[in-house]
Amino acid sequence: MTNTANPTLKYYWEDLPVGATIELGSLTVSREEVIEFASKYDPQPFHLDDAAARDTLFGGLAASGWHTAAVTMRLQVTSGLPIAGGIIGAGGELTWPRPTRATDVLHVVSEVIQIQPSKSKPDRGMVTVRSETRNQHGDVLQLTTVRIVVPRRPAAGGAGA
Amino acid sequence: MTNTANPTLKYYWEDLPVGATIELGSLTVSREEVIEFASKYDPQPFHLDDAAARDTLFGGLAASGWHTAAVTMRLQVTSGLPIAGGIIGAGGELTWPRPTRATDVLHVVSEVIQIQPSKSKPDRGMVTVRSETRNQHGDVLQLTTVRIVVPRRPAAGGAGA
Repeated sequence: MTNTANPTLKYYWEDLPVGATIELGSLTVSREEVIEFASKYDPQPFHLDDAAARDTLFGGLAASGWHTAAVTMRLQVTSGLPIAGGIIGAGGELTWPRPTRATDVLHVVSEVIQIQPSKSKPDRGMVTVRSETRNQHGDVLQLTTVRIVVPRRPAAGGAGA
Repeated sequence: MTNTANPTLKYYWEDLPVGATIELGSLTVSREEVIEFASKYDPQPFHLDDAAARDTLFGGLAASGWHTAAVTMRLQVTSGLPIAGGIIGAGGELTWPRPTRATDVLHVVSEVIQIQPSKSKPDRGMVTVRSETRNQHGDVLQLTTVRIVVPRRPAAGGAGA
């Protein structure tokens, strides 16, 4: 499954079978952005300054893991699945096997790994999506498994029938 | 355990027993910041515009969950445990029971729930920290369980002995 540029296309819970794979676009993370994000949300030396980062576990300037998560979300929103109602996460898991470096080009591949109708709310279901965020060398920088709330397709005829 | 303002105090793996609780500071999330973060990293209508948000699952403007995660990280860095080597997460789990709203005052309480020495690297260990991010009404907005890489206390005398 590839994302299309059709703005009227909207996916419902019924349209997302287990195994569906979505190739997302890519984004370059600039040095300025690494430092700007860290200044606001993760002001630690290894996210702010080359010299200070050299003698740390990272061995050089590294983006905050939450910055990698935020860029991944941007790619999901701007080039991912056009889910009816938007991409609304209930929670999930994430790991950061390697840090994002300034000038890395990030891209994301997502796969539907589980679907589940809501027990209490018949108008929606959960879709569990596993995403790999990789850099231009193919290194995996982040792995996430996120549960997304997705509306079910309205019955034909709907409320007006 | 409460955070102190002593800038020379540094915690090593040995200083973080299971059950240690850390009260972090608080931060107000402004309306401008909700929209600014979303514009960059999660540009969906319910994170950007009151009117557009009204008819969505959120029922009104809501911060991106990744924004809540980023603000929580900021509180951990600026008012959390002064861990030797910094707060370096390897990954974790998160859920967002409720969205953060503009003007919410967030505060965080963290607890050490597991510690584990590294099997391969004797100079470090893992500390698993569970954190609750609450608003001014006591509502839980985010729950995280994050594994942090923490240096072990250097042996007395150290390399120079």
